[in-house]
Amino acid sequence: MSKKQMKLGLSMRYMGYHVGSWRHPDVPADGASLFQSFLEVAQTAERAKFDMLFLADGIGVRLDDKPKGSMCRSRHNVELEPLTLLSALAPLTRNIGLVATASTTYNEPYHIARKYGSLDQISGGRAAWNVVTSWSDQEAWNFSMSKQLDYDTRYERAHEFVEVVTGLWDSWDEDAFLLDKESGVFYDEKKMHVLDHVGKHFSVRGPLSVRRSPQGRPILVQAGVSEPGQQIAAEYCDIVFMAKNDLKSAQDYYSSVKDRLEHFGRKKSDLLMMLGLTPIVGRTREEAQEKYEQLEALIDPIVGLSMLYRSFGDLSHLPMDGPVPKPDLDKVGLKSSAQMYYDLAQKQGLTIRQLYKKIGMAQEHKTVVGTAADVVDEMESWFEQGAADGFNITPSLLPHGINDFVELVLPKLRRRGRFRDEYEGRTLRENLGLPVPASRYATTASADRRLAS
Amino acid sequence: MSKKQMKLGLSMRYMGYHVGSWRHPDVPADGASLFQSFLEVAQTAERAKFDMLFLADGIGVRLDDKPKGSMCRSRHNVELEPLTLLSALAPLTRNIGLVATASTTYNEPYHIARKYGSLDQISGGRAAWNVVTSWSDQEAWNFSMSKQLDYDTRYERAHEFVEVVTGLWDSWDEDAFLLDKESGVFYDEKKMHVLDHVGKHFSVRGPLSVRRSPQGRPILVQAGVSEPGQQIAAEYCDIVFMAKNDLKSAQDYYSSVKDRLEHFGRKKSDLLMMLGLTPIVGRTREEAQEKYEQLEALIDPIVGLSMLYRSFGDLSHLPMDGPVPKPDLDKVGLKSSAQMYYDLAQKQGLTIRQLYKKIGMAQEHKTVVGTAADVVDEMESWFEQGAADGFNITPSLLPHGINDFVELVLPKLRRRGRFRDEYEGRTLRENLGLPVPASRYATTASADRRLAS
Ligand SMILES: Cc1cc2nc3c(=O)[nH]c(=O)nc-3n(C[C@H](O)[C@H](O)[C@H](O)COP(=O)(O)O)c2cc1C
Ligand SMILES: Cc1cc2nc3c(=O)[nH]c(=O)nc-3n(C[C@H](O)[C@H](O)[C@H](O)COP(=O)(O)O)c2cc1C
Repeated sequence: MSKKQMKLGLSMRYMGYHVGSWRHPDVPADGASLFQSFLEVAQTAERAKFDMLFLADGIGVRLDDKPKGSMCRSRHNVELEPLTLLSALAPLTRNIGLVATASTTYNEPYHIARKYGSLDQISGGRAAWNVVTSWSDQEAWNFSMSKQLDYDTRYERAHEFVEVVTGLWDSWDEDAFLLDKESGVFYDEKKMHVLDHVGKHFSVRGPLSVRRSPQGRPILVQAGVSEPGQQIAAEYCDIVFMAKNDLKSAQDYYSSVKDRLEHFGRKKSDLLMMLGLTPIVGRTREEAQEKYEQLEALIDPIVGLSMLYRSFGDLSHLPMDGPVPKPDLDKVGLKSSAQMYYDLAQKQGLTIRQLYKKIGMAQEHKTVVGTAADVVDEMESWFEQGAADGFNITPSLLPHGINDFVELVLPKLRRRGRFRDEYEGRTLRENLGLPVPASRYATTASADRRLAS
Repeated sequence: MSKKQMKLGLSMRYMGYHVGSWRHPDVPADGASLFQSFLEVAQTAERAKFDMLFLADGIGVRLDDKPKGSMCRSRHNVELEPLTLLSALAPLTRNIGLVATASTTYNEPYHIARKYGSLDQISGGRAAWNVVTSWSDQEAWNFSMSKQLDYDTRYERAHEFVEVVTGLWDSWDEDAFLLDKESGVFYDEKKMHVLDHVGKHFSVRGPLSVRRSPQGRPILVQAGVSEPGQQIAAEYCDIVFMAKNDLKSAQDYYSSVKDRLEHFGRKKSDLLMMLGLTPIVGRTREEAQEKYEQLEALIDPIVGLSMLYRSFGDLSHLPMDGPVPKPDLDKVGLKSSAQMYYDLAQKQGLTIRQLYKKIGMAQEHKTVVGTAADVVDEMESWFEQGAADGFNITPSLLPHGINDFVELVLPKLRRRGRFRDEYEGRTLRENLGLPVPASRYATTASADRRLAS
């Protein structure tokens, strides 16, 4: 019997998750603004049969100059907007999925449904939306708000937002367009649906001016950890992007999300949990360790402190080699990361310097330093023990991170029967092996036809 | 001395401006949803050295089923979103400009600045934004409003919107990025500018998370006819897209916009007036007339009446071969078109049927039926008499409309020295021969440097 295979995504924001990646001698310093650098990475990932390219997002420069002098040293300043970038990559790729992040807090559902719907048409069914609620006041300031909406309102709005977007995506039945030149009838009136949504946050009439997705509807991704985040995932989403450093908490989160699916009439296999993973691979463990240390040296202390600022406030007056103070969770933007960072520091007894060096490598994501065999062992172990259905590779550096992974790790993963040799299908949904959700307007008869076909 | 040359754009929405284009035997009926059909047209236009591709837009299906039975016969139902489509075309073209329409009524300035800024990076300085205020309640219904904002508020918002977007585009000086790997300094603090805009409609802090445009800033296009529309054009825009059928009113409008420039310290040559033009070309006049009649026959009467509905209300109870009634301008969405249609009907003594046949061909745009020489004569005549600086070709059918134009009309235009043989520059702004606006943060010293270089 063939073994169950993993899913693989590649996250390519800012050309690497390492906070100082741009300073590495082999990395194009302004790579995050260059289409060509993303194109090369995307094509490498597609040649390697990755399931998808992933772009995280924030709508603005989410930094203040805290501590002073840190902002002009950070590369988190300029980049290409994800949906624009993935649209440009669409015609230069054929099979790989295109996952762009967009916030439900600063967008309108009609625009989102329309743009992702269009990308889905252009790419032949490879579009995916990573649904986020955003977490910084800096973003609110770019959208005529003095601070961000409170947490509960953000999630309440997100829930309704996703409801509206998926509704708009059902505007047209797959076979709605008769295109009868002779009689002049363009579409069958019975197969066009006006949403007429009226809710607390939105009133949206529809129909959407984009025809039905080649994959039924675009793939939905979610990354929230909290109760309301998990509920949206379980009700609507195809993928959860998770950041976990220790096996136990990954397993707990994995089960917690999967256990919710039944309530919505879904199977456990209808949603894939993808773990962020940063492999630092060498031909030997020593080489990997050397690479790790070279990367550590690229982290400017002031940039390190600015990473901690979001979770802990300004620590520049504390001894860098002293302990990490408890964060004030009521005041931080990203509660789950702050908690995770503090737990990490406690568990491993890290100083301030040690902590920023750790998270400077790959933010919240799990890092594995070692040989290809070490990386594959770790991946298999988490995969087999119910902690992940696949991995979203979050390389420290690009293009090196993906080149190393493809050259060293993938062949081993394939030899163990854990990753595909060829794409199975045409759309992202087909390649992920996920079911096509029925239209909310589908009659039982037409749903049966679909199942039979 | 070489003659002054015309600018040329190609408008490609819905694969043709003819309301029944999809029914023509040679047109792909679902072309408006197919990336491939736009790609072919775009590449033809680029081979012919057109200045730009243009995509009009409405955010939603702007139709009600009035008269009943018309909506399912219209092709104005599904399409690809302009910015997504042009982003996908960007890497498959090299020189041609990419003009996408976006509404200031249903968007946020930060998103617009960011997306067009990103397209501009990806395309190497070929992005342009057609600024519109929208005109239908159908769009408002998709954005949690019961009807559209009133006219004055729409334009007031538009003015502030453009002010914010252009401000965000000045966030980073061209030489702001030091990218000094050794010292770890990414950008020069003095060359980053926080907008801190606080106005009636928007508060936007900035900076924009996209670096400065390769063409200084993306090209701005405007299409409003009214007083406030012309003011925005004169203050900020590089191009006006105009729809005029008779020479005199085109000349008046042309002068009216150009005369406003001085007040903003701009020269007349700093803004280009582009006239919508629909050529129906034959090798003989008879062949052109035959094409015209073939096109007329594709207009379903009920679809014709639905086009008039926007301006005149439901006319289905009136005799089709009787006169056109006066529109109630206070009730219509697009006042300027309603007025133009009524004037046309009055001047030429058109019946209801004759009017919808006329505007079914190319909406508001000027139509020329004849040989290539006829078309070129007409173009030269308007160009020389101060009615237009160039033409935005709005073909009845695509791809035929552009193929005919390139094959028959362009060689004649070139022989008369009126159109380029090769692109002059790399960016859209260079090809249009338009000046780079100075950053609002430029000191006199650095502005002088720019002028000298
Ligand atoms: C792996 C991961 C990736 C995320 N990516 C983004 C992102 O790209 N943009 C963003 O605004 N928020 C992102 N978030 C934040 C979440 O969307 C969410 O706002 C945050 O986790 C707070 O919600 P929670 O309490 O439900 O986790 C991410 C979170 C995780 C765990
Ligand atoms: C040639 C031309 C093209 C236009 N294109 C669009 C368009 O693509 N989308 C849109 O919403 N409005 C479009 N409009 C409408 C204008 O943006 C504007 O809303 C309308 O003309 C009313 O304003 P006004 O009274 O200043 O003309 C267009 C108008 C003209 C004249």
